[in-house]
Amino acid sequence: MAITRRKVSVIGGGFTGATTALMVAQKELADVVLVDIPDQEGPVQGKALDMLEATPVQGVDVSVVGTSDYALTKDSDVVVITAGIARKPGMSRDDLVHTNANIMKSVTEQVVKYSPNTHIIVLTNPADAMTYAVYKSSGLPKNRVIGQSGVLDTSRFRTFIAQELELSVEDVQGFVLGGHGDDMVPLIRYSSVGGVPLTKLLSQDRIDAIVERTRKGGGEIVSLLGNGSAYYAPAASLTQMVEAIIKDKKRLLPAIAYLEGEYGYEGVYVGVPTVLGGNGIEKIIELDLTDEERDQFATSVTSVQSVMNALPDEF
Amino acid sequence: MAITRRKVSVIGGGFTGATTALMVAQKELADVVLVDIPDQEGPVQGKALDMLEATPVQGVDVSVVGTSDYALTKDSDVVVITAGIARKPGMSRDDLVHTNANIMKSVTEQVVKYSPNTHIIVLTNPADAMTYAVYKSSGLPKNRVIGQSGVLDTSRFRTFIAQELELSVEDVQGFVLGGHGDDMVPLIRYSSVGGVPLTKLLSQDRIDAIVERTRKGGGEIVSLLGNGSAYYAPAASLTQMVEAIIKDKKRLLPAIAYLEGEYGYEGVYVGVPTVLGGNGIEKIIELDLTDEERDQFATSVTSVQSVMNALPDEF
Amino acid sequence: MAITRRKVSVIGGGFTGATTALMVAQKELADVVLVDIPDQEGPVQGKALDMLEATPVQGVDVSVVGTSDYALTKDSDVVVITAGIARKPGMSRDDLVHTNANIMKSVTEQVVKYSPNTHIIVLTNPADAMTYAVYKSSGLPKNRVIGQSGVLDTSRFRTFIAQELELSVEDVQGFVLGGHGDDMVPLIRYSSVGGVPLTKLLSQDRIDAIVERTRKGGGEIVSLLGNGSAYYAPAASLTQMVEAIIKDKKRLLPAIAYLEGEYGYEGVYVGVPTVLGGNGIEKIIELDLTDEERDQFATSVTSVQSVMNALPDEF
Amino acid sequence: MAITRRKVSVIGGGFTGATTALMVAQKELADVVLVDIPDQEGPVQGKALDMLEATPVQGVDVSVVGTSDYALTKDSDVVVITAGIARKPGMSRDDLVHTNANIMKSVTEQVVKYSPNTHIIVLTNPADAMTYAVYKSSGLPKNRVIGQSGVLDTSRFRTFIAQELELSVEDVQGFVLGGHGDDMVPLIRYSSVGGVPLTKLLSQDRIDAIVERTRKGGGEIVSLLGNGSAYYAPAASLTQMVEAIIKDKKRLLPAIAYLEGEYGYEGVYVGVPTVLGGNGIEKIIELDLTDEERDQFATSVTSVQSVMNALPDEF
Repeated sequence: MAITRRKVSVIGGGFTGATTALMVAQKELADVVLVDIPDQEGPVQGKALDMLEATPVQGVDVSVVGTSDYALTKDSDVVVITAGIARKPGMSRDDLVHTNANIMKSVTEQVVKYSPNTHIIVLTNPADAMTYAVYKSSGLPKNRVIGQSGVLDTSRFRTFIAQELELSVEDVQGFVLGGHGDDMVPLIRYSSVGGVPLTKLLSQDRIDAIVERTRKGGGEIVSLLGNGSAYYAPAASLTQMVEAIIKDKKRLLPAIAYLEGEYGYEGVYVGVPTVLGGNGIEKIIELDLTDEERDQFATSVTSVQSVMNALPDEF
Repeated sequence: MAITRRKVSVIGGGFTGATTALMVAQKELADVVLVDIPDQEGPVQGKALDMLEATPVQGVDVSVVGTSDYALTKDSDVVVITAGIARKPGMSRDDLVHTNANIMKSVTEQVVKYSPNTHIIVLTNPADAMTYAVYKSSGLPKNRVIGQSGVLDTSRFRTFIAQELELSVEDVQGFVLGGHGDDMVPLIRYSSVGGVPLTKLLSQDRIDAIVERTRKGGGEIVSLLGNGSAYYAPAASLTQMVEAIIKDKKRLLPAIAYLEGEYGYEGVYVGVPTVLGGNGIEKIIELDLTDEERDQFATSVTSVQSVMNALPDEF
Repeated sequence: MAITRRKVSVIGGGFTGATTALMVAQKELADVVLVDIPDQEGPVQGKALDMLEATPVQGVDVSVVGTSDYALTKDSDVVVITAGIARKPGMSRDDLVHTNANIMKSVTEQVVKYSPNTHIIVLTNPADAMTYAVYKSSGLPKNRVIGQSGVLDTSRFRTFIAQELELSVEDVQGFVLGGHGDDMVPLIRYSSVGGVPLTKLLSQDRIDAIVERTRKGGGEIVSLLGNGSAYYAPAASLTQMVEAIIKDKKRLLPAIAYLEGEYGYEGVYVGVPTVLGGNGIEKIIELDLTDEERDQFATSVTSVQSVMNALPDEF
Repeated sequence: MAITRRKVSVIGGGFTGATTALMVAQKELADVVLVDIPDQEGPVQGKALDMLEATPVQGVDVSVVGTSDYALTKDSDVVVITAGIARKPGMSRDDLVHTNANIMKSVTEQVVKYSPNTHIIVLTNPADAMTYAVYKSSGLPKNRVIGQSGVLDTSRFRTFIAQELELSVEDVQGFVLGGHGDDMVPLIRYSSVGGVPLTKLLSQDRIDAIVERTRKGGGEIVSLLGNGSAYYAPAASLTQMVEAIIKDKKRLLPAIAYLEGEYGYEGVYVGVPTVLGGNGIEKIIELDLTDEERDQFATSVTSVQSVMNALPDEF
């Protein structure tokens, strides 16, 4: 058989979606299809063509296509969902959840119609509940529906540590459980620099400040930008997850995974350490938690469950 | 002496400037400073921080800083200028030239104040005249003030050829002289695929169509986007020029260079084949032109000169 | 279905084979199996383990295994054959051809037993005849059995041109037809630097000297080394061909392909421009040749045919 | 000022030296000079030319030169010393130390004559004592004379852990103190996978077995090869150290550093965690050790000191 290129589709052509398409193309991981609603077909075609026109100087052989036609996503190896609305002033959380859950449903149905054996990575907020909505709508096995949150949080955490210590980001390890933001459970015990525990290198005060900054990391960017939210680091995080799957790398990365008994929970999507490879989430790593960590994680799960309760009835 | 990192400053934090900063960082070419006016300091700080937070997952050790304070650009090895306004409906070309020339002047004075021995690459439109304006304002030798146009045009041309022939972009060579758009002088004789002349692989009709599409390449993206213009391929093109200089690669690339007798012209900045290395434009390559090419090039130069005449008196 | 890694097997664990394995692993193109005869199992296991132990610092996730057991090559996407003996003093060319043809036969039977749908790239000398021997022994379609020669010759040619002109190797294009060494047919008309024809940049004398040096390129290394022959550039050339196939890049590269009417020849493997992609040689590009080039090519083909006549009867 | 390329010289053109030159060139870190004794000038010229001829297909712009003339190493940013003899059957350790120390002296004098401000990385065995000999011969400050041992040991350790757990090598962190082989002090507490402590993932038995295999890692390769010793992973390790310095990365890496009070020792070169950047060893990280680790480290230091005592009187 001829060897064919891998294929990655990115649903949602906003800043994060487009930047993810760019980064997947830059790494020559796969041909890329960037999808948006018919109304936005021109813009995603323009962005995709612009990226394609950058391939000669970047020295990569991939096609990049923008479209509103899901038929072009046929046989995708991985699909990344960034579609959805952001919470607007005056909008209740439940309204956000309803709207985005319905978007997840309609997107997912189109995705699996053309790629019934794909892997789906979900970024749309609130990511835990949206990953669950995609899982329910897709009919895919749980290992193939994965949410992003911990890779981004960890990347921010590593950035702040490296900056504080004036050391290479490559040598900083961090680790988070649970959800984004206030629900994030940083495992400081498991954070280190070149193997040296963080607690040997920084005072508890500084660590606390960095944890707090990480928790508020998304908000920090929002408030600087004035308009809109982060997209470079989110896109890089999604790309790392795509790469782990496409190249079957067996990376040990935090991801939003479906728990069926792990950590004592059942039927909930939440951020845990996983092994990401060619079969999606190939394993969930169960860590011993301290009492404090367990409590924080429980709070995080409760928070996810409360969002899940706000999902429309069909989920 | 300790080895220090290279430093690249990008002036103008819009889409092209920010994407250039991203790509320079991704290639770990240099620490990056992204500069905009005080009014835009928050947004460029946000974009820069977002890029920095992507470095751990991308595995690169560079700092990325957003600022409105040129002091942070001190001792830049290369400065890329993307600042300036786009032509608005109803605005005359001369108004555009005046406004952007004044922006070039004020930006350049700040740049050379802090980096008196730097290299400057200019993207701002109209690029030939703006490169001249920067040259005049900078006091730098001509080899250190360089405009971008041909790398982008060539990249688009190569994209369309590769697409038409269903071949790798890596094997397509193209070559253009002169200005952007209608002033572009494609040297079809010097365009090839894996060394095979284009004329052996495509009919003249198809070549003409591709040349025409390349000429209108910027407009094609503008019309698809609906709002705004291309930034991925322009940023990738700028990054390739930055890399050629930072790594002293001696690349043979088209660039807007100051002619002093070459091709029979004097005192004009226009797109020609150059050798780009650690000393900026280290050489201008003079090609034999056919009568037709010479005429087209003359038209292109005339067009540049007419724009230069529209510059404010002090240039 | 789960996504699995690509797999490349390299037959022959000498310098070229081992260096090819290293380079395929460094580019994270595939898991690698390095095969040698039972007698050499220890050394190839040692080399493979040493390479594997380099993967953490190189940041690549591939397995590298050394073995004498072809079962481990099962389902290889691409197989590279470097096995064979070098011509020893006093050995006739026909003896060399006989010995290596028999090695090709026994290696190929083992290869296709475990990977009946693979692609095979042959380096063993004399490469044209050995590629034919592998083709005949394999039962594979002609597009899946490919010989290396022109990529290496072109790489050497580009090196010498770049050195002479003090320009980036990235901008030098070269092109050769026919066999290695004295049978090489350089197409100077199709060689250029950044699109500029070589003849505009160098005198005919210098071009002739560089062509001559390229023809003798293998011998130059042999005579410097004193013992043994080139392996870095040959391995890099093989790796480029592997990459073109594994990533379905549709590269326009010179390769030893089976002619069935192209260029007026039938039933002979000889170096011609090809399109290399996921289906092996997807196309042979037929160029118009000048009379002189046609004569040189004919000489090259005659030379190949004479070697093919020296093959044992079963081929 | 024009930007010039970085320059790295590798002394000793055997397998490890040549492979280091290759890897530095592949990463386009610097122009490379490969130096050997006059007797070996042909071979190193051949290897360097062969590497140079691989640059076009690898797409990198660097020069690679082989020579016996140290004048070509002038103004090297980093020099890697791999020269020296291997211990032969019947040779006493003291004879080895004497011979290699004299080689270090003569090499170093040549090196600093032409690059009085360079950084030197020493691989030659026994590495701790040889690094000391180079330090003494060079007149360079201690931060600029660095020995390799821990990067290689850690890379092997990470390989074995990743293999055992079937996980990406990218997520395995390891940490060693002290010397090679039996003197290696693995800090298991500081070893983790994706931040998860090793002890949570593997039984003590398996960890012990992996530590033991790491200690004997060099010998395992020697016994497989039958003739000669490891060079791929050693070269990759040296290249990582070169990169940390050339790119001023501030990596936290184990290296053989000169202790002046750190860990309670004075005037000895031994393997400790360091920060490697543009100023060489910018910092030595002092860890709290358990009693057991402290004892093992003391043994390791004693062993180094005993080798240092075997150095010729002039050191």
